[in-house]
Amino acid sequence: MTDTQALPAGITVERVRELFNPKSIALVGATDKSVWSLSLFKNLADFPGRVYLVNPRGVVVHGQQSYTSVAELPEVVDLAFVMVPTGAVLEVMEHIADAGIRSAVVLTSGFGEVGEVGAELEARLVRLAEERGITVLGPNGNGYVNVASGITPYGLLISGELKRGSIGVVLQSGALASAVIQLAQTRDAGLSLLVSMGNESMISMTDVMRYLVEDEATKVIMLFVESIRHPEDFLEVSRLALAAGKPIVALKVGRSEGGARVARAHTGSLVGDDAVIDAVFRQNAVIRVDSLEDLIVTAELLSHAAPLPGRRVGFVTPSGGACEVISDRAEDEGILIPDFAPETEARLAEVLPDFASVHNPIDVTGYILIDPMLTIKALDVVQDDPNIDEIVYIGDLPHDDPADFDAAVARYQLQSEAISRSKKPVIVVSNTITDITPVGRAVAAASEFPGVVGGIHHGITALGRAAEWSERYRAAQAGVSGGAAVTAEPPIVVDARPGESFAERKAAALLAEHGVPVVPNALVDSADAAAEAAERFGFPVVVKLAADEIEHKSDIGGVRLGLSDADAVRQAFDDVVAAGRAAGAAAPAALVQPQRSDGVELIVGAVRDPKWGLVLAVGLGGVWVEVLKDSTLHLLPVDREQIKAGLTSLRGAKLLEGARGTQASDLDAVADVVARIADVAVRLGDRLESLEVNPLLVRGSEVEALDALITWR
Amino acid sequence: MTDTQALPAGITVERVRELFNPKSIALVGATDKSVWSLSLFKNLADFPGRVYLVNPRGVVVHGQQSYTSVAELPEVVDLAFVMVPTGAVLEVMEHIADAGIRSAVVLTSGFGEVGEVGAELEARLVRLAEERGITVLGPNGNGYVNVASGITPYGLLISGELKRGSIGVVLQSGALASAVIQLAQTRDAGLSLLVSMGNESMISMTDVMRYLVEDEATKVIMLFVESIRHPEDFLEVSRLALAAGKPIVALKVGRSEGGARVARAHTGSLVGDDAVIDAVFRQNAVIRVDSLEDLIVTAELLSHAAPLPGRRVGFVTPSGGACEVISDRAEDEGILIPDFAPETEARLAEVLPDFASVHNPIDVTGYILIDPMLTIKALDVVQDDPNIDEIVYIGDLPHDDPADFDAAVARYQLQSEAISRSKKPVIVVSNTITDITPVGRAVAAASEFPGVVGGIHHGITALGRAAEWSERYRAAQAGVSGGAAVTAEPPIVVDARPGESFAERKAAALLAEHGVPVVPNALVDSADAAAEAAERFGFPVVVKLAADEIEHKSDIGGVRLGLSDADAVRQAFDDVVAAGRAAGAAAPAALVQPQRSDGVELIVGAVRDPKWGLVLAVGLGGVWVEVLKDSTLHLLPVDREQIKAGLTSLRGAKLLEGARGTQASDLDAVADVVARIADVAVRLGDRLESLEVNPLLVRGSEVEALDALITWR
Repeated sequence: MTDTQALPAGITVERVRELFNPKSIALVGATDKSVWSLSLFKNLADFPGRVYLVNPRGVVVHGQQSYTSVAELPEVVDLAFVMVPTGAVLEVMEHIADAGIRSAVVLTSGFGEVGEVGAELEARLVRLAEERGITVLGPNGNGYVNVASGITPYGLLISGELKRGSIGVVLQSGALASAVIQLAQTRDAGLSLLVSMGNESMISMTDVMRYLVEDEATKVIMLFVESIRHPEDFLEVSRLALAAGKPIVALKVGRSEGGARVARAHTGSLVGDDAVIDAVFRQNAVIRVDSLEDLIVTAELLSHAAPLPGRRVGFVTPSGGACEVISDRAEDEGILIPDFAPETEARLAEVLPDFASVHNPIDVTGYILIDPMLTIKALDVVQDDPNIDEIVYIGDLPHDDPADFDAAVARYQLQSEAISRSKKPVIVVSNTITDITPVGRAVAAASEFPGVVGGIHHGITALGRAAEWSERYRAAQAGVSGGAAVTAEPPIVVDARPGESFAERKAAALLAEHGVPVVPNALVDSADAAAEAAERFGFPVVVKLAADEIEHKSDIGGVRLGLSDADAVRQAFDDVVAAGRAAGAAAPAALVQPQRSDGVELIVGAVRDPKWGLVLAVGLGGVWVEVLKDSTLHLLPVDREQIKAGLTSLRGAKLLEGARGTQASDLDAVADVVARIADVAVRLGDRLESLEVNPLLVRGSEVEALDALITWR
Repeated sequence: MTDTQALPAGITVERVRELFNPKSIALVGATDKSVWSLSLFKNLADFPGRVYLVNPRGVVVHGQQSYTSVAELPEVVDLAFVMVPTGAVLEVMEHIADAGIRSAVVLTSGFGEVGEVGAELEARLVRLAEERGITVLGPNGNGYVNVASGITPYGLLISGELKRGSIGVVLQSGALASAVIQLAQTRDAGLSLLVSMGNESMISMTDVMRYLVEDEATKVIMLFVESIRHPEDFLEVSRLALAAGKPIVALKVGRSEGGARVARAHTGSLVGDDAVIDAVFRQNAVIRVDSLEDLIVTAELLSHAAPLPGRRVGFVTPSGGACEVISDRAEDEGILIPDFAPETEARLAEVLPDFASVHNPIDVTGYILIDPMLTIKALDVVQDDPNIDEIVYIGDLPHDDPADFDAAVARYQLQSEAISRSKKPVIVVSNTITDITPVGRAVAAASEFPGVVGGIHHGITALGRAAEWSERYRAAQAGVSGGAAVTAEPPIVVDARPGESFAERKAAALLAEHGVPVVPNALVDSADAAAEAAERFGFPVVVKLAADEIEHKSDIGGVRLGLSDADAVRQAFDDVVAAGRAAGAAAPAALVQPQRSDGVELIVGAVRDPKWGLVLAVGLGGVWVEVLKDSTLHLLPVDREQIKAGLTSLRGAKLLEGARGTQASDLDAVADVVARIADVAVRLGDRLESLEVNPLLVRGSEVEALDALITWR
C-alpha cells in the first residue's frame, strides 16, 4: 500500500452505510475462470437480495445467465463489484456511473501498490468516482462481509459460517483476512462487519471506523493497521468511539521499521515513529495488541464484557496449576486478585472440599470430576464478595464429541444459569486457545453458555487491556479529558524567521512570559552590575556571555560556573566579555543567573512529527536519556493528568520519588509546568519546529527551566 | 504440593524405566463408582499387556471379573495402580510388597498436600516403599502415559488419540495435564511420555527427566514446574540433557510469589527467588516459556528442528501482512531476516509475479490462489541462498473439509516434496494457532506434510528460543563450558566465627591475596606515616579510621576524602584518630588509600540462596541499583563468558560502552575480575554467607575493588 495518495475528504457515513447495505449486487467481470469470481458467487449464495453477473461475452457464468454490460441490467443495482482486468477498470467505472450505480468495490489490483503508473491510474479512478458520485472501496481489496445483514461481497471463499455478533473488523491486509476470519470462527467470535480496505484510494479505514461507531450492530472495533493515512480523522474517530463506549483494538504492524525519526536535536533521539503511534493509541484509549491471537481474543472479551466495572477479579478454577498461571499473568497485566472477605471464604469452605483452596484464585480441585457442581457453588458464593469487581470462571467447552450430548448440554446449562444469576459480571476463559469446535459451539448454543475467551494466556492479556480501557471510558464519561484538552488560550504570535533559533535568554523570556517558571537572570553590561545582580540572586551564580550570535559559548570560555563572591563575579564578567570580544561578539554584555545544584533534571521537548504534529517528549535528563532513552511521549495537546501518568511510567520514576537521598518531587507541580510548556508549544502554532527545555530542574515542588531552545520552520 | 518432604536418593533410571514399561497392570481399588477407575480402564483398552482389576468384594467391575486382593492375582504384575481410599493405601502397599510387585502408581490423594497428618502418612508410605523395594509414582498423581509404547495407566480420560512422537512431558500439575494433552492433540504434536508427578514423594521430576535423557524415543523434554525439589539433580540432569542434544522447555509458575528473598544487605534487594530460577535456567540452557501455548509450540518446533543451524532465517509467505507481523516478532525474539544474495532475488524475480516481494521476507502475494506453485518455486530458490541458515514457510493445513480431499492431498504433497528436497531445514509455521483439525491431520498424514508450528506469534517466540538453545548446544559440543566451570583451585581456609563480618581492610586483604585487584591501602599509626603513604600513592587520597570495632566510621567523622597534600593528610590522620578515640577505638591507626574518581561503579555480590547455593549478582552501582534494580544473576560456579554476556545484558550496559563521556570499559577485564571474585566466593566454601564488592570501579581496563564486605555463617 502506498501512503502518497492524496485523499478526498467528505465521505459521509451515509454513503458508507449505503455501500455496506446493498439490496442488489452486480458482479462485473464474473467468469468461471476466476477464483475470485467463483468465491464471490459462492459467498453470495445466501444473499437475500439480487445478484447479477456481468461478462462482456454475455455467456452463462457460475450456472447463471450474465449480462454483457451494467447498462443491460434490469435495475439500477446498489453495488457493483468490479473484478475486470486492470486496464478495463476505468471504462467499466464509466459504465457504472452511466447506469446510476452509487457504490462499487474494486477488487482488481495493479494500481498504487505497483508503482507510479498504477498510482496515476488510481488517481484517475478516484477523480472519476468523485466526479460521478460513486463511493469506491478498494481498489486492490477483497471487499467486505456485512455479517449482521448477511451480505457477503467478498472475493475470498469463506468456508464455514461467520457468526453474527458485535465486532466490526477493518483490515489493511487482504491476505491476513482469511486468518482473521478463521480465528474468529474458531473462537466463536461474532462479527458485525469485516472490511478488507485495499488501497483506500477513496474510502479509508477511518471512514469505516466512523461508520462502525454509529453502527448499532457494532460494539467493538477491531483493526489490522499497516498505516494510518488520516491522522486527524483517526484521532477524532477514536474520541467518538470512546465517547460511544466502543473500544478500538488494533494490531499495528511496522513496529520494527527503522523509519523516519520525528525529531532532531537532543530529544530527537528519543522519538521514533512507532513510539508516536504508541502515544497516540495510549492517549486515545486505542488498545494496542501484539498478535492476531490477542486481537481476536481481546475483541471477543470486550464484546461480552466492556466496560468492566474494575480490575479486581475473583477467579474460580478447577485447578491449582491454572491458579498459578493466572497469578503470574495477572501480575503481568495489572489485574488484581484481592483477598476475599472472611465471610466469602467461610461460605466457600462450607461448599468446597476440605483440600480445596478457598482463597482467591479459588481451586475447587479435581473433585470437580466427582461433583460437577463445585465451580457453580463457588461462583454462587463469590458473586457476593465485596472485594471484587467481576469474576473469571475458568472453563472449557467440550472439544470432542461428548459421550452423551444431552447430558453435556444439561451440565453446561447449570453453569449458564449460575453465570446468569451472578450479581457480578462473569467472564468465561478457557485453559488454552484450542478451537471452540463445532460440537463445542453446538453445546454452547443449546445451553446458552456465554462466549468463552481464548485461553488463560491471551485471556488475561485481554482482561488487563479491557480493564484499562474501561477506566478510560469511565473517566471520559465523567468528563475527564481523554487527551483532547485543546487549549483555550489564544495563539502566541512571535516574530521569527524560518530556520531561526531562539536560545537561552530569548527562549527563556518567551517561556517566562507565558507562565513557565524560568531560572532568574539579569542581563548586565558591567562587572559592577554583574556583582550587584549576583548579590541579589544569592551565591553561587553563573556568568555567561550574552551574545546570540555565538553558539557554543562554553567552548570559547564564555561561561563561568560556581562563582561564590562578588569579586569572582566581576572577574568572570571581564573574562567572558573578553572571550566574547575575541570571538567577535557584538556587545560587551553577560547574563548572571543563580547556580542551581541538586534536584532531578528532566528534558521536556515538543517536536513536530510530520504526520501527527507536535509531539511532547518528557524524560529524565543526563544518563537516563543517554543510556536508557527513558522518556514518555504525548501527542499535543495533552492534559496535565496524562503528563503526570507519563511521569510515573518512566523507568527512572523512582528518582522522582526521592531515591538516592534526593527530595521527593512534587509530581503535580512538575506536571503543571510541563503542561504549561506544552501549552506554549501548541499556542506557538504551525511555525514552531521544536521547543526544548533542557534541563527542567525539579527540587521538591520547585520546578524551573534552566535552559531552553526554540526553533522555527 | 509440599516442599518439606525429605526424599530418598538413588532412584535409578532402570527402576524408572521398569515403572514406565509394564507388561501387566493391576488396578487396585477398581470400581464402577469411580470416575478415575472408569477412565483408567477405558484408557487401557488398547494396552497390549494384561490388565487385572482388584476390588475387595471381588465383584464384576467394568464388565470384568475382579480379584479381591493383589495376593490373588494369577501373576506378579509389573505395575500396581492404586486408587483405594487414603486410609487403605498403606495396607494395600503391604500387599503389593508381599506379592513381589516392584512398581506402583498411587493416585489416591490426602497425603502431604493436605497438611501434617497427610505428610506423616506420606512419610510412612515412602518408608514402606523403600524398605520393600517398591518404586512409587505419586501419591496424588494421575499416573502416566507411555505414548511411545501405548501404555496408559492414567486416571483422567484421554479423548482422542495421542500422537506418538518425541516430546517427553513432565507435569507437576495434575489438572492442567488435560489442557496440555488437548493442546498437544490440536497441534498434532507427538509425545513419547507424559507423567503427572503428584506429590513426588519418591520419584521426582528430576528422576523422570534423567530417564527421558536416556530414553531413545524422546528428543525434547517439556516441563510444567511448580517447584524444583532437587536443585543439584536439576542442574546435573540439565547438563546431561544439553550434552545429549535434548532441549528442555519449561513453564515455571510462581513468578509472582513474594516468596523468600535470596539475600540480605545491599545486593539482597536485587535478588528474588524467581530471578534465581531465571539464572539457573539461562545458565543451563533450559528454555523458559510464559504460557502453555508457548510450552507446546516451542517443544513441537524443537522436536522437528533442533538444533537449528543458526538464527538467520529466510521467510516464504503468501501475504504482505504476514511479512509485517513476522518482521516485528523476529526483532522481538532475536531472529535475523538477512537480505538475500542478489542472485537469489534475481531468480525469485523470474519465478514470482512482478508485484511480489522478492526480498526477505518473501511475499508471493494472493496470486498463490491462481498459481499454488508460487511458494514452492520461492522455496526452491531460497534454499540455495548463502545468507540464511534455515527457512520458515508460512502455511496452514486445511482446517475444514476441503471440497476435494485427494486434490488437497496432492497440493500438499507437492509442498512436502519441495520441503524434503530443500538443502536447508524448512520449518512450517501457520498464520495463527487455530487447531490442526482431524481433516488437517489426515491431509498431513496422506501428503507426508511436516509438523506445522502453531502460529506466527508463538512460532517466532519458539524459533528465537530454539536458536538460542542451539547456540548453547553447539558451544557445549565444542567444549565451551555451559556454566559448570567448577574451579580447579583449592578451597580457601579462613579463620572466622559464625556471624562474623570481614569489612574493608580484612576483606580487601583476603580478596587481594587471591588475585582480585584491590585499591592499594596503607595501615599507618602516625600522621607522618600517613603523609608518606599518601606521597607514595599520589594525591588525592582518602584517610579512614582503622578500627574494625566501629561500624559506621563516616558517621563519627572517621573518614576524610579528597586530601590533596601532605599537610591535609597529617591533619586528617589526627582528626580521624581523635574521632576514633572519642568513639572508643582501640588503637590510633588509620588507612590511607588513593582516592579514585570517574569510572563506572559496579556492585558484585555473592550471596547464599537457601536452595541453590551461592548466587552471584553483578550490577551497576549507584542510582542503577537503587532505581532500576539493574543486575544480572549467575549461579556459582560460573565462567567468564557468561559473566561477560551478563554484563552486556544490563539495562545500563551502554554506560560500560562509554556513554556520558566516560571511557569505554574493557569488558574482558571486568569479566576477569568478576570471575576472580566469584572464584574466591566458591573457594571460601560452605561457611561463606555473603561476599560483596561495592563498588568495583571500572576505568577502561583498570578494574579495582574499592570496598568489600564478607559475612560468615
